[in-house]
Amino acid sequence: RLLRIGLIPGDGIGKEVIPAGRRVLEALPSSLGLKFEFTDLKAGFETFEKTGAALPDKTVEVLKSDCDGALFGAVSSPSKAVKGYSSPIVALRKKLDLYANVRPVKSVGTARTPIDMVIVRENTEDLYVKEERTFDAADGSGKVAEAIKRISERASYRIATMAGNIAVRRQRIRELSPHQKFVHSSPLVTITHKSNVLSQTDGLFRSTARAALADLEAAGTVAVEEQIVDSMVYKLFRQPEAYDVIVAPNLYGDILSDGAAALVGSLGLVPSANVGEKFAIGEPCHGSAPDIMGQNIANPIATLRSTALMLEFLGEDAAAARIYAAVDANLEEARLLSPDLGGTAKTDEVVEDILRRL
Amino acid sequence: RLLRIGLIPGDGIGKEVIPAGRRVLEALPSSLGLKFEFTDLKAGFETFEKTGAALPDKTVEVLKSDCDGALFGAVSSPSKAVKGYSSPIVALRKKLDLYANVRPVKSVGTARTPIDMVIVRENTEDLYVKEERTFDAADGSGKVAEAIKRISERASYRIATMAGNIAVRRQRIRELSPHQKFVHSSPLVTITHKSNVLSQTDGLFRSTARAALADLEAAGTVAVEEQIVDSMVYKLFRQPEAYDVIVAPNLYGDILSDGAAALVGSLGLVPSANVGEKFAIGEPCHGSAPDIMGQNIANPIATLRSTALMLEFLGEDAAAARIYAAVDANLEEARLLSPDLGGTAKTDEVVEDILRRL
Ligand SMILES: CC(C)[C@H](C(=O)O)[C@@H](O)C(=O)O
Ligand SMILES: CC(C)[C@H](C(=O)O)[C@@H](O)C(=O)O
Repeated sequence: RLLRIGLIPGDGIGKEVIPAGRRVLEALPSSLGLKFEFTDLKAGFETFEKTGAALPDKTVEVLKSDCDGALFGAVSSPSKAVKGYSSPIVALRKKLDLYANVRPVKSVGTARTPIDMVIVRENTEDLYVKEERTFDAADGSGKVAEAIKRISERASYRIATMAGNIAVRRQRIRELSPHQKFVHSSPLVTITHKSNVLSQTDGLFRSTARAALADLEAAGTVAVEEQIVDSMVYKLFRQPEAYDVIVAPNLYGDILSDGAAALVGSLGLVPSANVGEKFAIGEPCHGSAPDIMGQNIANPIATLRSTALMLEFLGEDAAAARIYAAVDANLEEARLLSPDLGGTAKTDEVVEDILRRL
Repeated sequence: RLLRIGLIPGDGIGKEVIPAGRRVLEALPSSLGLKFEFTDLKAGFETFEKTGAALPDKTVEVLKSDCDGALFGAVSSPSKAVKGYSSPIVALRKKLDLYANVRPVKSVGTARTPIDMVIVRENTEDLYVKEERTFDAADGSGKVAEAIKRISERASYRIATMAGNIAVRRQRIRELSPHQKFVHSSPLVTITHKSNVLSQTDGLFRSTARAALADLEAAGTVAVEEQIVDSMVYKLFRQPEAYDVIVAPNLYGDILSDGAAALVGSLGLVPSANVGEKFAIGEPCHGSAPDIMGQNIANPIATLRSTALMLEFLGEDAAAARIYAAVDANLEEARLLSPDLGGTAKTDEVVEDILRRL
């Protein structure tokens, strides 16, 4: 099978980690029967400064017509508001209708408490619709700005369905490995919301997610519970072992996944995939990290895992499993670790160690 | 001086902890020259079920005309959307224009890393304006709900000003205790926002907070920095010692303070004050905790500290200091601790231990 992969490094360390994603794909054993074709694509703040567009039309067109999947690095946020600039990854998620942002957070010897959960974040709406306006206060007290938070039944239903499917898939893996100890031993979906304040919007997310999961729950296949987002952040830190799959509207998902990343010890470990009906973009959860760029010390693992995650959603589980296992082996040995994990290895050394283990 | 205090226990363990707040006020040494008059007031879900109003007009009237301050316990959120019910504390904050929610988070031997920060949360706007609507999607794909997130220059300016003042006050305390080691050794305000996505609303919060703090920064009195909310949650857990005063819009403040509470070991330790020009309501950060209610095991410390915090904002620093010191002494001795802190003491026993130390 030929897979055509767009490569969008973006800014900062995106340029150092996306090549690692390409290398791991190229290094996959030929017995898997996969061939890859790569196209370099532009997006990001640097692209904006050069061309006036943070997400050139060309990038979107090529992804749509010539790619099966893609890897996205990171983009820098300007330190002051810049007219005309807006985040290309947020735009891309919407333009390709990549409605789910799937973020597995798993510790392999890197956390005090073992962590193994998946955050399933809605990826197209909520405050990310970016419909904002600014006006003068009627009482002359200055400016007022408003943003729309939009929650739809359609988007909430499909994201909760995805969360349910992931919970079922995780349970299948548990059953296939009866001797392994899992952090959470049974399938559970936790619905996150703030419907005690936002009764209509988050209320709709909550009731729709409940409806989407009702059959699985009734069949006893997956347990379903709810957490208010503030108390969810609290519990995430106090009892991370209590979670299996978490489903959340866009913004809460954004916040919760950074929180979960803190628990495993580094954002440099946490992958994500932006997933649509027929397309997936792997994207490390970390940002462009201008403070460490150009030093060859960025942790490539978030990108390598994101590459595997992309493969999973493109139906290539066996190839994905190879990459995960190689990454886990590197972490378990803990000999070649990047500085964010307390090691001294360079990005390249970590990549090579992992490639050797494929 | 006579202080007239409204007591609003609300639901669940609110009924067990608010009496502790009253007791500590009554037990203050008479040398402080304070007298208290208490009025019991109703609010909460139980009140809603009995009277149809979660926040009776009477409660608001009495607070406005006959009270100098108040203590608020907690309210239960119904487990399903209930028509006509909406959170009384959110309403109260707006009705009394209690524009700041001040949440000091401090560990006294309860955390792995020492924690000492104050979260200053805007308390009147953002998504808490609760302007929502629901309609049918044009494409027939189901319901859509929208909420308004509103950020004003006026509210952002005054909350950032409050944060600056608190940073200055904390610095004064550092200077008065040159031999004490503080977690963060110099005054710093961290502005939290998500202006990389919400350029107008959070952009306005960011630029207004910057403007409000510009003089203090220029004078070298207080350092000012910014954090995007997701990365703020990450850093809060990785380097809590990097923060002194955090200022945030309403919802981020809500989420961050639960996160910070997890760091000190229990929500049962974290106080808050809802503060306006001439009024303050002390309120523990925890909820009504129906699972442990009626067992006399709720941790009263969040309420006792909230009582002290209310006194501070009513200008009674000396009385507040007594309460803080008595609470700290109880925690340092760690003999009579409630179950959330790993102890076996009853609520009453903890209260009595603290009263003895006044
Ligand atoms: C860069 C930013 C727009 C983005 C987001 O908020 O989605 C990032 O935080 C992420 O989590 O991918
Ligand atoms: C109960 C709820 C409405 C409230 C809030 O969101 O403000 C609570 O979480 C708090 O932090 O005081």
